Amino acid sequence: MALYSKITIIGLGLIGSSIARGIKENNIAETLVGYDSNPEYQDPIKALNLVDELANEITTAVKDADLVILATPVGAYSTIGAAIGSHLKKGSTLTDVGSVKAAVFDMLTPHVPKDVHLIPAHPVAGTEQSGPDAGFASLFHDRWAILTPAEDTDPLAVNKLSKFWETLGSDVEIMKADHHDKVLAITSHVPHLIAYNIVGTAHDLEEVTKSEVIKFSAGGFRDFTRIAASNPTMWRDVFLNNKEAVLEMLGRFSEDLTALQRAIRWEDGDALYDMFVKTRRIRKQIIDAGQEDDVENFGRRHDDVETE
Amino acid sequence: MALYSKITIIGLGLIGSSIARGIKENNIAETLVGYDSNPEYQDPIKALNLVDELANEITTAVKDADLVILATPVGAYSTIGAAIGSHLKKGSTLTDVGSVKAAVFDMLTPHVPKDVHLIPAHPVAGTEQSGPDAGFASLFHDRWAILTPAEDTDPLAVNKLSKFWETLGSDVEIMKADHHDKVLAITSHVPHLIAYNIVGTAHDLEEVTKSEVIKFSAGGFRDFTRIAASNPTMWRDVFLNNKEAVLEMLGRFSEDLTALQRAIRWEDGDALYDMFVKTRRIRKQIIDAGQEDDVENFGRRHDDVETE
Repeated sequence: MALYSKITIIGLGLIGSSIARGIKENNIAETLVGYDSNPEYQDPIKALNLVDELANEITTAVKDADLVILATPVGAYSTIGAAIGSHLKKGSTLTDVGSVKAAVFDMLTPHVPKDVHLIPAHPVAGTEQSGPDAGFASLFHDRWAILTPAEDTDPLAVNKLSKFWETLGSDVEIMKADHHDKVLAITSHVPHLIAYNIVGTAHDLEEVTKSEVIKFSAGGFRDFTRIAASNPTMWRDVFLNNKEAVLEMLGRFSEDLTALQRAIRWEDGDALYDMFVKTRRIRKQIIDAGQEDDVENFGRRHDDVETE
Repeated sequence: MALYSKITIIGLGLIGSSIARGIKENNIAETLVGYDSNPEYQDPIKALNLVDELANEITTAVKDADLVILATPVGAYSTIGAAIGSHLKKGSTLTDVGSVKAAVFDMLTPHVPKDVHLIPAHPVAGTEQSGPDAGFASLFHDRWAILTPAEDTDPLAVNKLSKFWETLGSDVEIMKADHHDKVLAITSHVPHLIAYNIVGTAHDLEEVTKSEVIKFSAGGFRDFTRIAASNPTMWRDVFLNNKEAVLEMLGRFSEDLTALQRAIRWEDGDALYDMFVKTRRIRKQIIDAGQEDDVENFGRRHDDVETE
């Protein structure tokens, strides 16, 4: 028997379409319904046969669904919540895949009936690509799926959603929404902001031409451009909806950077060296924790390697 | 006939040992001599058969060499220059592989006889690994080798060194040392400093545990840890010896980051979105320029992917 009788996915971009593929591959639903407001996505969604039914209206899409998954940019949640709230099935679960979690309660709680289980979730997985074509079923394999239910949420509904993510190949972690937002601010949100920022700084230089930046990008810059190529709408919404945690981590980052800047200005080689040795150890711990392969240059071809 | 009769490499870490492998593979020298002051490197250098002769003294290592390549951290150049200067062969070429170039003239010119060609060079290639074991001959394939000769340097000596790098598989670019230092400050040095810094910031957090940082590193942070795992001595010397350009680019970076921080604080979604769209274009140009594969996640296994 399928885990959920009917599942509806709102938004079939990279993440939504990967979930759809995973649901079909693992027979998690008897019926899989999809909805996406982007006119350009309609043809690829059909061509890829991602869902059993592609709905024209968001309200009909969620009808009778046992699990509704929001996989749109977070900024659309309020509007979507207002539209679908009264159409959600009694006893069903409403979840999402956004990179911020506390804001999900703020945006959806006003619209969700008491007899619907609201369980925000965040699969820590993705690529810098976007759209239904970019998805693949193994996207979530061996990645973390973080669930952030409220304290009074029905444990049976939480367990069922955990099972859902485990079936897609993920390891599930439960934590409070606020804590999630702090952890992700430092492991994901601030790194993305910094990557966007350095690429922007390089873009605006006068003394160094853009073609030189591109030509000699193998020096480290190139890796930042990959991170900074992620979905702009999604990331705008992340920063707007995890403002406090991002600003706090950013403040610490800037403080630390000022200290490094000062060490360079005063030629304090020992301070620089000590810092660079400390950070090297963290890399080793990440590899040991199985979160990364110990392959140099992300396993790029040897004739396409990184710079020093 | 070999391009150079006798070549000496001082320092057989990642870069020096890769050059040694490339010289042997392409028969660029009749005799290849090596020297490394690190006692721990002696056995691997011999075991890997990297050079024809492994010298015990740096002065005997450079004797009669037609090309001497410094592949040590830049901070050692003054000491090395003082030691080998009077032992260099008349008409020979002294070059290096350091990531900063103007400082090379400052450190070596006082020690190098007028009849020796000093031609600083920088192969824009490398990995986050260190040591003689980490090298490989194809490291320089399709990568840039930047030569920064002084204006009055003998063009024949420059041509010969260009030929050397082309034989190792590189594309050669000639530019002024000062300009090199500005280009690399933005494409390499500041990105590395930022990567070191964010990893350090994460390390020092109290509210988020180190194990959480490691566990959820796939969110973007992981890529920074790879960059921040590079050779600490080498990078200390880069920042100490490209101080002006790094401080200038860092100033611009911080200014831009403050603007982004302000956009987040005031919830200026349009400013964030415009910035994120602009940076996405640069990524495309880098891929179009052949400096990167269009493979998501650096071609990581699909079950070991990046986060959003």
